[in-house]
Amino acid sequence: MKEKAVVLYSGGLDSTTCLAEARADGFEPYALSFDYGQRHTVELEKARQNAIPAGAAEHRVMTMDLRIIGGSALTSELEVPKNRAMDDSIPITYVPARNTIFLSVALGWAEVLGAFDIYIGVNSLDYSGYPDCRPEFIAAFEKMANLATRAGVEGVRPLRIHTPLLHLTKGEIVRRALALDVDLKLTHSCYDPTPDGLACGECDSCLLRLKGFEEAGVEDPVPYFRRNRS
Amino acid sequence: MKEKAVVLYSGGLDSTTCLAEARADGFEPYALSFDYGQRHTVELEKARQNAIPAGAAEHRVMTMDLRIIGGSALTSELEVPKNRAMDDSIPITYVPARNTIFLSVALGWAEVLGAFDIYIGVNSLDYSGYPDCRPEFIAAFEKMANLATRAGVEGVRPLRIHTPLLHLTKGEIVRRALALDVDLKLTHSCYDPTPDGLACGECDSCLLRLKGFEEAGVEDPVPYFRRNRS
Repeated sequence: MKEKAVVLYSGGLDSTTCLAEARADGFEPYALSFDYGQRHTVELEKARQNAIPAGAAEHRVMTMDLRIIGGSALTSELEVPKNRAMDDSIPITYVPARNTIFLSVALGWAEVLGAFDIYIGVNSLDYSGYPDCRPEFIAAFEKMANLATRAGVEGVRPLRIHTPLLHLTKGEIVRRALALDVDLKLTHSCYDPTPDGLACGECDSCLLRLKGFEEAGVEDPVPYFRRNRS
Repeated sequence: MKEKAVVLYSGGLDSTTCLAEARADGFEPYALSFDYGQRHTVELEKARQNAIPAGAAEHRVMTMDLRIIGGSALTSELEVPKNRAMDDSIPITYVPARNTIFLSVALGWAEVLGAFDIYIGVNSLDYSGYPDCRPEFIAAFEKMANLATRAGVEGVRPLRIHTPLLHLTKGEIVRRALALDVDLKLTHSCYDPTPDGLACGECDSCLLRLKGFEEAGVEDPVPYFRRNRS
């Protein structure tokens, strides 16, 4: 029987590739998504449709309204920035402590499943402005996780946080996805899709994704609604 | 102006005392509770009623259904054990990764509030069977938290997890609560109250609380429904 792994899965390019990495590593992936009050609920609908086709053994959605604590353009009424030049500063789409919260719930589910492996598709290159996408954060979370659970107390076996995309460029992620036979049509990355689910082509997430496909030299199969583009 | 602190607040003896400690340390306490699918919703109603009278500047309740990941007598249909002899093993009322999840959300709120202090009423003596009540877990969480947030990246000021009850016996907590003028009538600890909100007097939490009052030599002002007691 295969070992189980919990995979944080938003249905985007990165987390779908991450799920494929977990399978390639020999794990049975248990996909976990969050309904956290994100303004783009299209993401969640697509995650529900695509998790099992993408190879998850099971998919669960945890509802938790992060709007209660506020503070991000992804959950509050702040405007999602468009066509901005990205730098190293922390963008307003950063959701305070989001990866910490998501990894903590994944840790709880892993403990219930008897799993010792958690996958998260964080990336320290393209998301250099997000504190909780950095390698030193992941290492500290892993250390804490091993003290937080029965496994830690009972010394069964160390828990591992896997970050297969941590040091890849977006172009390398696209190539890795293709090598792992990920159906890229079934991934959704936009922070601010149109009501009928088209990617905007202008938010940070779309810009990074498009750059990745360009670097990889392949066409993005996902349709875009592009206002200001030729 | 006072500095803000986030206080994890269930409305029980420990977290109410913890809130009073935050005030005594000079902070303005922001109380955070969770509607996590606990079977004892009486706890939450009482927390809503009592947070402001207990001294919170603000009280928020985050809804997140931990039953999605299962695994505890507090959230699933497992029976809450009664009048059991407690030892060092992990009890079935343990909710996987609960304190990790709660502290993570507190971390997010602290970041939004501009707070650098989080209070949690964990106790390593009476809850020796809970992995996430141990000092080494708290230290590892604090370290991780400092890498997870803007404060960490921007090096503003270190974030601290305060655990004023960590090394106290339940009797010492009762005495500390009295010294801090905590209104003990307004605290609720039972895991399995009657439908009209009376403490059962027989679950682990009631047994520990009653032991604490006995050790402190004072009467618990909270009414109990005691089936098997004289």
